Amino acid sequence: MYKTLFLFLSLLLSPQALAADLQLTADVIQRRQAMMEKMHDRGMLILFSADPAHYSGDVDYEFRQENNLYYLTGIRQPNTTLVLMPQNFSRREILFLSARNPARELWTGELLTTEEAREISGIETVWNASDFDRFIDSILYGRSYHSSDSSEYRNFFIDLQKGEADIFFLLESKPGLKGKITKEFQFANRLRERFTGVRMKDAAPFFHQLRMIKSPYEIRQLQKAIDITVEALNEAIKIIHPEIWEYQVEAIIEYVFKRNNSFDWAFPSIVASGPNATTLHYQKSERQTQREELLLMDVGAEFNYYAADITRTVPVGGRFTSSQGTLYQLVLDAQKAGMEAVRPGASFRAINRAAVEVLKKGLHRLGLITSTTSDQYRVFFPHGVGHFLGLDVHDVRHEELLKPNMVLTVEPGIYVRSDSMDRLASQGVDSNDLELIRPAVAKFMNIGIRIEDDVRVTETGYELLSGDAPREILDIEASVMPKR
Amino acid sequence: MYKTLFLFLSLLLSPQALAADLQLTADVIQRRQAMMEKMHDRGMLILFSADPAHYSGDVDYEFRQENNLYYLTGIRQPNTTLVLMPQNFSRREILFLSARNPARELWTGELLTTEEAREISGIETVWNASDFDRFIDSILYGRSYHSSDSSEYRNFFIDLQKGEADIFFLLESKPGLKGKITKEFQFANRLRERFTGVRMKDAAPFFHQLRMIKSPYEIRQLQKAIDITVEALNEAIKIIHPEIWEYQVEAIIEYVFKRNNSFDWAFPSIVASGPNATTLHYQKSERQTQREELLLMDVGAEFNYYAADITRTVPVGGRFTSSQGTLYQLVLDAQKAGMEAVRPGASFRAINRAAVEVLKKGLHRLGLITSTTSDQYRVFFPHGVGHFLGLDVHDVRHEELLKPNMVLTVEPGIYVRSDSMDRLASQGVDSNDLELIRPAVAKFMNIGIRIEDDVRVTETGYELLSGDAPREILDIEASVMPKR
Repeated sequence: MYKTLFLFLSLLLSPQALAADLQLTADVIQRRQAMMEKMHDRGMLILFSADPAHYSGDVDYEFRQENNLYYLTGIRQPNTTLVLMPQNFSRREILFLSARNPARELWTGELLTTEEAREISGIETVWNASDFDRFIDSILYGRSYHSSDSSEYRNFFIDLQKGEADIFFLLESKPGLKGKITKEFQFANRLRERFTGVRMKDAAPFFHQLRMIKSPYEIRQLQKAIDITVEALNEAIKIIHPEIWEYQVEAIIEYVFKRNNSFDWAFPSIVASGPNATTLHYQKSERQTQREELLLMDVGAEFNYYAADITRTVPVGGRFTSSQGTLYQLVLDAQKAGMEAVRPGASFRAINRAAVEVLKKGLHRLGLITSTTSDQYRVFFPHGVGHFLGLDVHDVRHEELLKPNMVLTVEPGIYVRSDSMDRLASQGVDSNDLELIRPAVAKFMNIGIRIEDDVRVTETGYELLSGDAPREILDIEASVMPKR
Repeated sequence: MYKTLFLFLSLLLSPQALAADLQLTADVIQRRQAMMEKMHDRGMLILFSADPAHYSGDVDYEFRQENNLYYLTGIRQPNTTLVLMPQNFSRREILFLSARNPARELWTGELLTTEEAREISGIETVWNASDFDRFIDSILYGRSYHSSDSSEYRNFFIDLQKGEADIFFLLESKPGLKGKITKEFQFANRLRERFTGVRMKDAAPFFHQLRMIKSPYEIRQLQKAIDITVEALNEAIKIIHPEIWEYQVEAIIEYVFKRNNSFDWAFPSIVASGPNATTLHYQKSERQTQREELLLMDVGAEFNYYAADITRTVPVGGRFTSSQGTLYQLVLDAQKAGMEAVRPGASFRAINRAAVEVLKKGLHRLGLITSTTSDQYRVFFPHGVGHFLGLDVHDVRHEELLKPNMVLTVEPGIYVRSDSMDRLASQGVDSNDLELIRPAVAKFMNIGIRIEDDVRVTETGYELLSGDAPREILDIEASVMPKR
C-alpha cells in the first residue's frame, strides 16, 4: 500500500510520467486496493487479457482489452496478465507483459516498456509474459521464483496446503456441455488436476460491485463519450432528408465518433428507417429512407473505453405525421416519467413502473391495447426501460437499488410491428378484443420509436448527461432541415 | 446439374428473384460445380459459417461470413452450413439455415426465408440448421433422413463401409498442442471416434485453386472496392495539413468507405505520420502530424466481401523535402519496375526481383547500403513486394506463376527506422561499412515510404486498377493543398 502510494507520488514528480494518464493511474491503484479488500487480503486473483478477435484470413480486428483487466491496470496491450496476492510481503501486485521485440515491433509498433507499464498501472513488479507459467508453478509447488524471496509467497502456500487457498478468476461465462472452454476455465482445470487445495472462485461479483459506482474520472470519460455521441447525432440530423440511405447516416455518425478519437463505437450502430425501426437491434443499415418515414438512430461512441448510448427518432422529411407525433409524444412522456423516478434508493423496477404506467394509459387511449392490467403492452414495448452504462454499454449490475454516481440509460419505446396482431393473439387476447385493436394497429403500422438518454444518479435525483441532442417534437422539427 | 441450372433459369424469370444478385448466384452455382469436380464427384464437403466475433460484454462485432462458405453460397447469415455430396441422386447440395423465429427477429431483424436462401444460393434443398446433427447421423449410419429417399445417400455409405469415404473440411489452421480446437476439428474428431471408414481431408487447397482466378463478377466487385478506396484517399489528401491528427485522416477515409456502403474496411486502416510510417502495420492513429513530415496511408475498403488495398505516402505540408523526394522517387521507380514484370507466366519472385534491383541500386547510390550483393537492403525493405487480393486482403495463393485475371498488389517501400544501425550490425555488416552508412541513415532517419497499387493480370501484361489516386511527386504536391 505505502509502496504503491510512494510509487504514485514519485510518478507525479517525474517528467516521464506525462506519458501516462495520472488520474487513470490513481484510479487503478485505488481499485486494486478495493479488490484486495474484497478478497479479505487473502488468496490470489488472476486476470487474463482478451484474445484478439478474428476478422478474416490473417486480419484481426483492432485489439480491445478485456474490461476488468483494464479496470485494474489501465493497460491496453494483448498478452497481459495481472496477479494480485494480498498476503505477499512485497509484490502483492504483479503484471506480466510481452517482452520488447524489435523484429515484431517493426510490423506492429512499439510495445510498452517496463517503465511505461509501471507508469500507467502503478504496479512496481512487471515481469515477462513468457515467465508466467513458471511463476505459477513455483508458487503452487512452494518454490521461490526469484532466489531473493524464497519466503515471498509463503502465506499463500500455507493456505494452499491447508486447502484454504482461494483463486479468483473471471468465470462469468459458463461453457456448458457443448460450448467452448474459456482460457480461464482451461487454466482453472489445469490447476484442479494437480492440486486439491485450490478453491476456484468467480471474481465477477467483486468487479460488479466495484464498477457500479463511477469515480469522478470515470464520469468525465462517460461525459466525453456522450458529448461525442450528441455531436454525431446533431450532425446526422442536419443532413437527413428523404431518400437518404441508412448507411449514409451511419457513415456520418461514425465519422464524428472517429474524428473525436473515439475507438469507433461502443456497439454496432443501429440506424433504422420506417419498418426497420420496429426491429430493436437492426444493424444492417442498407435501406433507402422514404418521405414520411421516421429514422431511429441508436448509437454510442466509446471514449477511453467508456460507452455512450443515445437514441433519437426523427422524421426524415422534417415533420412528424399526426400518427407519428402522437406516438412520439407518448414515448417522450413515458421517458420523462421514468427519469423522474431516478434517485438514490430507487430501483430499475420503479423506473420501469413509472414509464410503463404512462405507456399503458397512452396505448389504451389510442386503442392499441384493451386492458391496462394485462401484459398486452409488452407487444408494443418488449424491452427493459434501461441499463447501466460504463466500460460496457450494458454495464455490470449487482444491486437493485440506485446509488449516487451510478450512470444509466432511460429508454422507453413503442414498436408497431407487422406481426403485432399475431403476437397479441398468441398472448391469448380474445377475438373480440383483437377486432377492437385491429384498426389502431393498422393506423400505426410499421412505426418504431425509441428515445434514450443517459443519466447520472446524484445525491438527490438525477443529472441528464445527454440533454444537448434535441428531444422535444418542436426542437427536432427545427433541427431536421427540410431539403425540398 | 440440370436441376440447379433449371432452378437458376426459373429464378431469372421470377419477379421475386430481384432480391438476389443474379450474377453472384450464377457464380456460386458454377463454383460448386467446380468444387465437386475437384472432389472427383465423390465424398462429402462440410463447410461451417464463422462464429460471431466478441467485442466486449454482450456486444459482438457485426457478423462477417467465413469467406469459403460465402464463395460457394453467397449467404451472409450466421449458423449456416453447406454440405456437398456429389454421389447423391438428387440433393447433391444441401444448405442448413437457422429457422425463422419471430421472437428473435424482433431483436435482430429478419432471417432469410427458405425461398430467399434458395434464390441467393441457387441451392434447392434448404433445411433447418437444428436438423444438421440428425442428418449427419442418419447418413453415417446408413439410415434415411427423409423417408422418401432411403437410397439417397447409398453410394456415399458404401464408400464409407469400404473405408474409402473422403470428408472434406477446412482444416487450415492446425490447433497445435496448446491452441484452441476449431469447430471443424471438433466435428472431425467426433466422426473419427465413431467411424474408421472416414478419411479427413483438408478442402483448403481446392478453394485456393478456385479462388485465385477471378470471374468477371469478382473483378467488378474488386474494382468497386478499389474505386471507393481511391475516392477516400483523394478526399483525405485534400484535407491533409500540418498538425492534423492521424485519427482525423483515418476518420475521413473510413467515412468515405461507409458512405459508399462498404462493410467498413478490409483491414484496420494504417495512417502513420513521421516515424510511425516506419512501422509496417501501425494501427493506433493517435499522433499529431508535424510540418515537414510524410503521412503514410495504407487502407482498403471492403465491398461485397471483396478487398481493396492501396497505399499513398504524402507530405503533410504539401511539398516533399529533398530527402523525402529522393527516397519517394526511388520507391516509385521500384514499383514501376515491379509492375512491368507482371504478366502471365511470371512469378512473384520475378516481380520482387525487378523491384529489388531498382531499390538496391538506389540505396547504394544514396549510401544506405555498401553492397548490392548482400541482404543489407532488407533492413530498409523488410517485407514482400505484394500479395493476391480477393475475398481476403492477403488472398489465397496456391501456384507460383501468374495467370490472367489474378489480382495482386505491388507495394515496395523504404523505411529508415531509428534502429537501422543496430539491425545492420546484427546482420554482420562490419564496423568500417557501418561508419560509411551512418551519415546516410542520419540524413533519412524516420522516413517511411510505401506505394501500393492493385493490378489485374491480363492476357499480355497487367491492368492498373488503382491509377486514379495520385502517385507522381508533382501530382501529389498539386493535390495536397498547402493550407498556410
